[in-house]
Amino acid sequence: MTPLALAEGAADVVTASTEVVRVLDLLGVAANVLLAAVLAREKRFDLIGFLVLGVAAGLGGGMIRDTLLQRGTPVALTDLSYLSVALATAVVAYLVRVEGRWWTRGIRVLDAVALGTWGAVGAQKAIAAGLHWLPALLLGTITAVGGGMVRDVLLHRTPIVFGGNTLYATCATAAAGVVVLADWLTSSEYQGLTTLLAAGVGGTLCLLSYRRGWR
Amino acid sequence: MTPLALAEGAADVVTASTEVVRVLDLLGVAANVLLAAVLAREKRFDLIGFLVLGVAAGLGGGMIRDTLLQRGTPVALTDLSYLSVALATAVVAYLVRVEGRWWTRGIRVLDAVALGTWGAVGAQKAIAAGLHWLPALLLGTITAVGGGMVRDVLLHRTPIVFGGNTLYATCATAAAGVVVLADWLTSSEYQGLTTLLAAGVGGTLCLLSYRRGWR
Amino acid sequence: MTPLALAEGAADVVTASTEVVRVLDLLGVAANVLLAAVLAREKRFDLIGFLVLGVAAGLGGGMIRDTLLQRGTPVALTDLSYLSVALATAVVAYLVRVEGRWWTRGIRVLDAVALGTWGAVGAQKAIAAGLHWLPALLLGTITAVGGGMVRDVLLHRTPIVFGGNTLYATCATAAAGVVVLADWLTSSEYQGLTTLLAAGVGGTLCLLSYRRGWR
Repeated sequence: MTPLALAEGAADVVTASTEVVRVLDLLGVAANVLLAAVLAREKRFDLIGFLVLGVAAGLGGGMIRDTLLQRGTPVALTDLSYLSVALATAVVAYLVRVEGRWWTRGIRVLDAVALGTWGAVGAQKAIAAGLHWLPALLLGTITAVGGGMVRDVLLHRTPIVFGGNTLYATCATAAAGVVVLADWLTSSEYQGLTTLLAAGVGGTLCLLSYRRGWR
Repeated sequence: MTPLALAEGAADVVTASTEVVRVLDLLGVAANVLLAAVLAREKRFDLIGFLVLGVAAGLGGGMIRDTLLQRGTPVALTDLSYLSVALATAVVAYLVRVEGRWWTRGIRVLDAVALGTWGAVGAQKAIAAGLHWLPALLLGTITAVGGGMVRDVLLHRTPIVFGGNTLYATCATAAAGVVVLADWLTSSEYQGLTTLLAAGVGGTLCLLSYRRGWR
Repeated sequence: MTPLALAEGAADVVTASTEVVRVLDLLGVAANVLLAAVLAREKRFDLIGFLVLGVAAGLGGGMIRDTLLQRGTPVALTDLSYLSVALATAVVAYLVRVEGRWWTRGIRVLDAVALGTWGAVGAQKAIAAGLHWLPALLLGTITAVGGGMVRDVLLHRTPIVFGGNTLYATCATAAAGVVVLADWLTSSEYQGLTTLLAAGVGGTLCLLSYRRGWR
């Protein structure tokens, strides 16, 4: 390949990585709505309950992040994809009751992906808004665990972040940490790629901790 | 009447309708403070408890709406009428204990008016801020049920939005829907009138559902 | 002293007072994290739990205040001192278990200082943002009791503001009231001094009420 073709290929990868981050972000919304739906079914909620709890769980973390950053209306309200994915997933989860080992395992993987992605994306937005690395770690973690906390508060459950599984919040903080490191070491041009890497690190850590029962 | 007089009469109606919406909005604040006061009395709160719970219930929904929209400090903090109505109603509710069938029925009507009005006003503000119709429905609903959710979370009750009465949130969403439809069909000049119509539709739906025990 | 030297001395006092307010503000963060740590220990939380609850309790009030004011990203995220003090205090409280009468008494004094300072600082920021005196009182009170409310909601405790000790919120409102009065009577140049005075009034009222068991 000529250097130009190489550069073009690299540019494609960079663009694609941003797109992949977006897809993972939306998958995270779906995963959190599904997790909320499991609890909504236990409590025998009606469709409205599924929708309210699903939106709170799926979009809550990002809304808290954007509200704290104060850089305009939260993306969950301006980019229709987020709300559409959350509502559609809640409706499907209300109508179709899926169960079984593979289903539980699948949601768990999606949840791990969500924790990693949201930790990374939250830190990325904090850095883009000019915040220091320490608040960036905090904001990444809030993004990842915020929706679940809102869900648990609404249901009077002890927020999962306090309950036993230490690595729940830690995975998100780790993903945020990779973003912070990458921001020091690389050019902002590779943002999509480093966010993807960070999400991968956080998600893997989360899955490993599930598998090995780390606490 | 000459066409000019007609136009002037129409202009008066438009201005008046905006004023009526404002009055309904404030009546909604009073209704929600009164509903919170019933619970505060059950829990034997002191005056401070009545005030804190009343402000949270009466102004919470609008504060969440304005905080999410990020178009400046919430109107509940900049327009003195809101805070004054909330505090005065809480003080009166603390001092005077009114009970009986007609009282309960009266609060119920006021609550229905509040749900419709807040659903409509929330959607109106979302559209004015340039949001799409779907987030406008969400924001209208959040405005209407937000204060009650904050109240229920503070009191460790299961938020009423999850509890049985499906039409509670639905009335607000319906009012928001009428606003969205009117925004497509009419000129923004008639905003006050369409908001009023929307509030009426939502409130009526809410009262009907109480009366017929719809779920 | 010559008039010039007097003026310089006065300027020094004004500058110093602003610095003292800042130190009290940070001491308030530490006090609230320590109070949260006592509850975290009761619940046998791990380090993550101490950190999450500590940050929520220590920085929650200020974050709510700044989010409502909508004058940019909350100071808790832009000024590193706040987050650093909160995290460091949570780590120390997790590692070192201090108990005994003097310790409890010390935290109680710090808590009183925090209530007064936060009530005063919250009202000050509201006035600086151009709000009326009534919302300034509200915002001062929210700043002071907000962190504790978030903490109690996360732990499913009845928020302390509802529970018996009336003067808990009242101390903060009193401090906010002194700031409002001072804003009418003095030049804004003496802001630091009047905030300090207000914090002192609120804190003393709080300590007196503890001592005498006022309700």
